[in-house]
Amino acid sequence: MISKNQLKHLHSLRLKKFRDLNQAFVVEGIKMADEILESNFRIIEIFGTAGWFSSHQDLVNSRGILFHEITDAELTRASGLTSPNEVIVIASIPELTLPEPGLMGKIILILDRIQDPGNLGTIVRTADWFGIRHIFASEDTADLFNPKVIQATMGSVFRISLHYRDLSSFIRESLGSLNIYGATAGGENIYTAEISFPAAVIIGNESQGISEEILSIVPRKIGIPSFSGGAESLNASVAAGILCSEFIRRMN
Amino acid sequence: MISKNQLKHLHSLRLKKFRDLNQAFVVEGIKMADEILESNFRIIEIFGTAGWFSSHQDLVNSRGILFHEITDAELTRASGLTSPNEVIVIASIPELTLPEPGLMGKIILILDRIQDPGNLGTIVRTADWFGIRHIFASEDTADLFNPKVIQATMGSVFRISLHYRDLSSFIRESLGSLNIYGATAGGENIYTAEISFPAAVIIGNESQGISEEILSIVPRKIGIPSFSGGAESLNASVAAGILCSEFIRRMN
Repeated sequence: MISKNQLKHLHSLRLKKFRDLNQAFVVEGIKMADEILESNFRIIEIFGTAGWFSSHQDLVNSRGILFHEITDAELTRASGLTSPNEVIVIASIPELTLPEPGLMGKIILILDRIQDPGNLGTIVRTADWFGIRHIFASEDTADLFNPKVIQATMGSVFRISLHYRDLSSFIRESLGSLNIYGATAGGENIYTAEISFPAAVIIGNESQGISEEILSIVPRKIGIPSFSGGAESLNASVAAGILCSEFIRRMN
Repeated sequence: MISKNQLKHLHSLRLKKFRDLNQAFVVEGIKMADEILESNFRIIEIFGTAGWFSSHQDLVNSRGILFHEITDAELTRASGLTSPNEVIVIASIPELTLPEPGLMGKIILILDRIQDPGNLGTIVRTADWFGIRHIFASEDTADLFNPKVIQATMGSVFRISLHYRDLSSFIRESLGSLNIYGATAGGENIYTAEISFPAAVIIGNESQGISEEILSIVPRKIGIPSFSGGAESLNASVAAGILCSEFIRRMN
């Protein structure tokens, strides 16, 4: 059973305003539910079909999670997906504490105004693949707990810490402890540039790149050389992937 | 003016069936129209606002292109975009001839059942950036002239040759002239594997990877090592980007 108020609450969490207000977000589908159940995220409640519950009841009960059994028709009404998939989880947005600069790992990513939810989710997924644990993002970057972002992370959202910050202050404060590289079209060739660790790589907005304000305080600019007469740029998540790959390769 | 029949024709070209039947496709918006006007693609006709025509009439007239002036209201009805952007172009799907193996460039891509239009478009854009001119794709890969694919290429669709082929026969025939590498999770570490040119890299389906049939005839398997305990895979277009980057770096 799902009540009208529960339905309304679920739907409201698709909007950032209500996620912020409730410090809660929604994940949907069998795979994502499995991922969050394996993580340290605090689960508030689960709406699922009898079929889903039958294969997850030990886990749900052992963690003392509030479970509501719903019908397929109720699932369809509650879901934000075109093909709902057995289960919807409401979880708490975690409070992140910032580790000491020395404990953030040898590579971190900094995102300056990434707008597309698919790009943000894909960047989080890529960072996770390469073992990057901390990402810093400007306050106007897309919201990590937007359902489209969560979906694109393929579960990596539960393994990465993404800190929203005023980037300009964050970068100024970190210049002493991190080697900060801004990714720009005209930057030094990434394949031959010297790279020092711990390193932070800044990825800019999809159409405008890194803002002038940030670029002016970044000591080093790097870029992925083009071998084309025509293409003006790479997709932001592809560029982030290539930069992560190249930094990881050099680190090992 | 745009007639009912012209409207119907434009809308029909959103479907592969009608694109195949007419050997024609649609591109929309100022940027994409500029890109196709700069290319060698044969343009059949253009529907555009008076504003667009005033800044493009010399080009349109000098190339002898059929132009129909339409109002903003007509543009909205004709467009497939949520925010129509001044111009819609109908162009011919080019007939591709296969160059001799030695003239295809030092790196080619092979796509095995890439399904997501955004991924296909992004891979084409990345290939273009790195100067890769030829891509081979299985016949069940997404259609290059799908409007979402074209949009994601950001104009690179006009600079790349994508050949749809029976991949199994193509790979068998190319084994003598190309060094073919299949990208798989368990493959040899891409950062340390020996690579010979001319090289072809196979990228597999988003969820299933490269098919068993193809994998069984590919001499070398390579992979991007993971440094994560959790992430199961990379996004297909990010993986393609990292592989292109690494092959290009080794070539130079």
